[in-house]
Amino acid sequence: MGKKVVIIGGVACGPKVAARLKRLDPGCEVTVLEKGGEISYGACGLPFYLEGEVPDLEHLTTTPVGIPRDVNFFQAVKGVEIRVHTQAMAIDRARKVVRVKDLVTGTDETLPYDELVIATGSWPVRPPIPGVGLSGIYSLKTLKDAKQFKGAMDTSSAGKAVVVGAGLIGMECLSTLVKEGFEVHLVEKLPHVLPALLDEEMASPLHAHLEAKGIRLHLGEGVLSFEGDHRDRVARVVTDKAAIEADLVLLAIGVRPNVELAREAGLEIGRFGIKVDPYLRTSDPHIYAGGDCVENYDIVSGRPVYTPMGSVANKHGRIIANNIAGFKSTFKGVCGSCICDIMGFNVARTGLTEREARSLGMDVITALNPGPDRPHYMKRSRTIYLKLVAEAYSGRLLGVQVLGPGEVLSRVDTVAALLHKGGTVEDLAQVDMAYAPPYTNALDSLIVAAHIIENKRDRLAAGCSPGELKARLDRGEPVVLLDVRTPKELEEVRLPYDNVVYIPLGKLRDRAAELPSDKEIVCLCKISLRGYEAVKILGGYGLDESRLRFLDGGIAAWPYERITASGAQEKEGS
Amino acid sequence: MGKKVVIIGGVACGPKVAARLKRLDPGCEVTVLEKGGEISYGACGLPFYLEGEVPDLEHLTTTPVGIPRDVNFFQAVKGVEIRVHTQAMAIDRARKVVRVKDLVTGTDETLPYDELVIATGSWPVRPPIPGVGLSGIYSLKTLKDAKQFKGAMDTSSAGKAVVVGAGLIGMECLSTLVKEGFEVHLVEKLPHVLPALLDEEMASPLHAHLEAKGIRLHLGEGVLSFEGDHRDRVARVVTDKAAIEADLVLLAIGVRPNVELAREAGLEIGRFGIKVDPYLRTSDPHIYAGGDCVENYDIVSGRPVYTPMGSVANKHGRIIANNIAGFKSTFKGVCGSCICDIMGFNVARTGLTEREARSLGMDVITALNPGPDRPHYMKRSRTIYLKLVAEAYSGRLLGVQVLGPGEVLSRVDTVAALLHKGGTVEDLAQVDMAYAPPYTNALDSLIVAAHIIENKRDRLAAGCSPGELKARLDRGEPVVLLDVRTPKELEEVRLPYDNVVYIPLGKLRDRAAELPSDKEIVCLCKISLRGYEAVKILGGYGLDESRLRFLDGGIAAWPYERITASGAQEKEGS
Repeated sequence: MGKKVVIIGGVACGPKVAARLKRLDPGCEVTVLEKGGEISYGACGLPFYLEGEVPDLEHLTTTPVGIPRDVNFFQAVKGVEIRVHTQAMAIDRARKVVRVKDLVTGTDETLPYDELVIATGSWPVRPPIPGVGLSGIYSLKTLKDAKQFKGAMDTSSAGKAVVVGAGLIGMECLSTLVKEGFEVHLVEKLPHVLPALLDEEMASPLHAHLEAKGIRLHLGEGVLSFEGDHRDRVARVVTDKAAIEADLVLLAIGVRPNVELAREAGLEIGRFGIKVDPYLRTSDPHIYAGGDCVENYDIVSGRPVYTPMGSVANKHGRIIANNIAGFKSTFKGVCGSCICDIMGFNVARTGLTEREARSLGMDVITALNPGPDRPHYMKRSRTIYLKLVAEAYSGRLLGVQVLGPGEVLSRVDTVAALLHKGGTVEDLAQVDMAYAPPYTNALDSLIVAAHIIENKRDRLAAGCSPGELKARLDRGEPVVLLDVRTPKELEEVRLPYDNVVYIPLGKLRDRAAELPSDKEIVCLCKISLRGYEAVKILGGYGLDESRLRFLDGGIAAWPYERITASGAQEKEGS
Repeated sequence: MGKKVVIIGGVACGPKVAARLKRLDPGCEVTVLEKGGEISYGACGLPFYLEGEVPDLEHLTTTPVGIPRDVNFFQAVKGVEIRVHTQAMAIDRARKVVRVKDLVTGTDETLPYDELVIATGSWPVRPPIPGVGLSGIYSLKTLKDAKQFKGAMDTSSAGKAVVVGAGLIGMECLSTLVKEGFEVHLVEKLPHVLPALLDEEMASPLHAHLEAKGIRLHLGEGVLSFEGDHRDRVARVVTDKAAIEADLVLLAIGVRPNVELAREAGLEIGRFGIKVDPYLRTSDPHIYAGGDCVENYDIVSGRPVYTPMGSVANKHGRIIANNIAGFKSTFKGVCGSCICDIMGFNVARTGLTEREARSLGMDVITALNPGPDRPHYMKRSRTIYLKLVAEAYSGRLLGVQVLGPGEVLSRVDTVAALLHKGGTVEDLAQVDMAYAPPYTNALDSLIVAAHIIENKRDRLAAGCSPGELKARLDRGEPVVLLDVRTPKELEEVRLPYDNVVYIPLGKLRDRAAELPSDKEIVCLCKISLRGYEAVKILGGYGLDESRLRFLDGGIAAWPYERITASGAQEKEGS
């Protein structure tokens, strides 16, 4: 008689444990409990079903060759019993049984286990804001949510939609709402979109993109209440700054781990979910947990984190199955990799942002490198903004953010691979990244960013971040800006300051004497390659290099006001 | 008075050394010698200029903001003297001088150096085949070559073009020739395209793609001679199998390093180019060399290799400049990463192929994983064929090949990053690769491939390569094939053998008894995921697992004859 294994949760991690375990140890008796009616579905695909990129909701519940991944499939193919509409009510660890309730018949039962797996997932946060219970306010977590939300879009003909929360799910749903004809408002309590994922200056080009696509941004605005009409249907979202009319609201302010069952069973709960060891065992050696309900270990910061990602849940599932079957396996941890398509703008990141690293007390060096994702001479070349973050002392890589209309995935995955091996900036500079003009630059943007950090660490030139420069200029400090771009480039866009000296780089060797020798000079161009070159030229001509810096990321990455060709002042980053 | 540095070669590595060196040490006196008339141009962009993806040849010689990277630019901006049409004739190492000839005036001169850099690049092979000197036979290496080839295409209205050599350059030019209306023949002496880059079964889907695009493949055919017409213009390419009419021939059988100058100066020359140490110094400590003229070190095999890539040349340039300026830097080596767009089919690889690894005497385990590059439910999902190669004993990663209409770059770069850190299959399985349905799978194809190798190493199931299976079937060995696909899938494509048992996976648990217990059974499905599952099910039902294997890569990766819906036998892999 094989081991009895009960798995609580039938969406991502649970079915993965079950299927793998039956392959490793066919004698196991595996039962999966799912309180909902749907199992093993591609929940990450819901925003793309809404958008029409997934033609039919059923495609999220079938295998690649079209076989429904339903209860019969798991029985016939995997040899796994899945019981839907069945809720685990309590775990009795002493007796090693789970008390379950059949939600259809209402009957109770106890299931004995030798090994138990908790894969209870997460729930979308619905904060206790007045009016949050009004109709017309949706979340997007389950197939049912998606159906309801699609129904609501179909019936609220082209009204106003408010998305509350500028995290991944909220951002992924913007394009759908715009396509459906809604006037779309995005409300975010923090000062920029994707606040948990990006540094402030990296969000700036994304803000410009969203505005260009017609999204009304309400940043740094907290929702105070939802107001309804006479039918108790949402009509307005009231923030601390405005009242926004709304025919439809999508609440997308994150998810939280489902830990109640584990907590009531006396299992250790961490700050971000159920505590597990590297074998994904909870504090009870016969109970494993994985997926959105557990706390993960961050390999870069060494701290616990919350990582509700399908990619992680699947890895967990495999490792739990291995351990139950006696193949000792460990999960090494995550580094916060993610990627998102925001109305044609690609956003990806891994590791720590500068802000996160500094908040942990780390001393960091960064590189801002905006530029073409492929050689500029290729028609298909597109802009990407790249920020690389490393430890100042050791050069250890901490993270990267890459975004823009261009290619971002390869850059993020390359850094993620190095983060797993404790790689340094020097390692990155050496990677033999694949190169051909239809795809990338001879020196990839990532390698150029590594070079910028190497230059800074070697004190060949110092950078000045946009934030620092702006603050100093705002305080009226006597910083001279040296813009070394061509006259034609100056016509297109400039910084809105009086103390800018304009000398094209090609004339700088002749005209270096025009610059003051007693003031700090910040050199800049479009992306700061020439700005850096200017620092080196002026240093070579005898100016004090300690007073010379280049503007990190140049004009292209300047996240504040700029003067454009039309004469208008604007905030733009594209 | 600063150091005198003379750099021989003005295309990629040379100008990079010069520019970086002047930034590091402005006092240096840097002279670049270029025997041609053009400097610092994007030679890798030539195939895309022909194709129209680079609108103007000038774009290859300008900076991203449109400034010509000419002699004046290097003088004014970089402080570097470049002398074009100036050939280095000899190096006198004892006196530390270079004898140079002005190719315009014919005058000679000697230039003294403190440090010398050889960046003489490579030359396209023109083998001593009869008729190779006929007009109408082109190479593609320089801007002049590109102009001539374009001119030839414009005047040979829609005739027949023969590309000799199925390496990167030859493959990159196919689309142009097709667009220009040519009937295109591709002649390759070895049995498959990209023979230096791919294993045979990985070339198979690419062959199908090329044939579907109308390319006539002449594989395993060596060129014996070129025959001309009465005007000494090429008219036929004669191979050991056929005579192919030709209005235009592109010779693209590779490049060789320009080492003569170095050899005559008594510098050590390796099998693949000028010998350099990790500081990129030649056997003379005052002479550095980089770019296409040097031999590189392969970090995976530990052996010397030839890597004429723009990405490598640029890295070399930076490191040589560092060392001359006193910042000790080493180049860690290459791993043979490359990528190529072949008429909309993406091909990328890094590290060693299985064939290479075996020829070095290594014991390897591989995974063949064809499948969608993104979740199958996404409309934008496309097929990729992925082959991962690892050391059997240690699990150390050796290389990956990825190709297809889908995304390949991120997969190759991820493995390249791990190769630089000596990563294993287990490392790869743990990488937190960025995931969202518009880009990748929850378990990326690469991670699934790592899992397949882990399963094989753990002896959970054994694979059978297509080549081995075919050989055994051809020999009439009593192997039973078990195809577990659905009836609908069987209608689309099948293997052309009689000894196939068809049982859909969902029925296998009930019908396992139908299978012979005394014969070897190879289980298969579309991509082998279910094939693997079938092995585990049959093992669980008591069949001897040592007689059970799954077909690596399934029907999708089967590189030989198959029977398709139309009833026709065909060779196809898409």
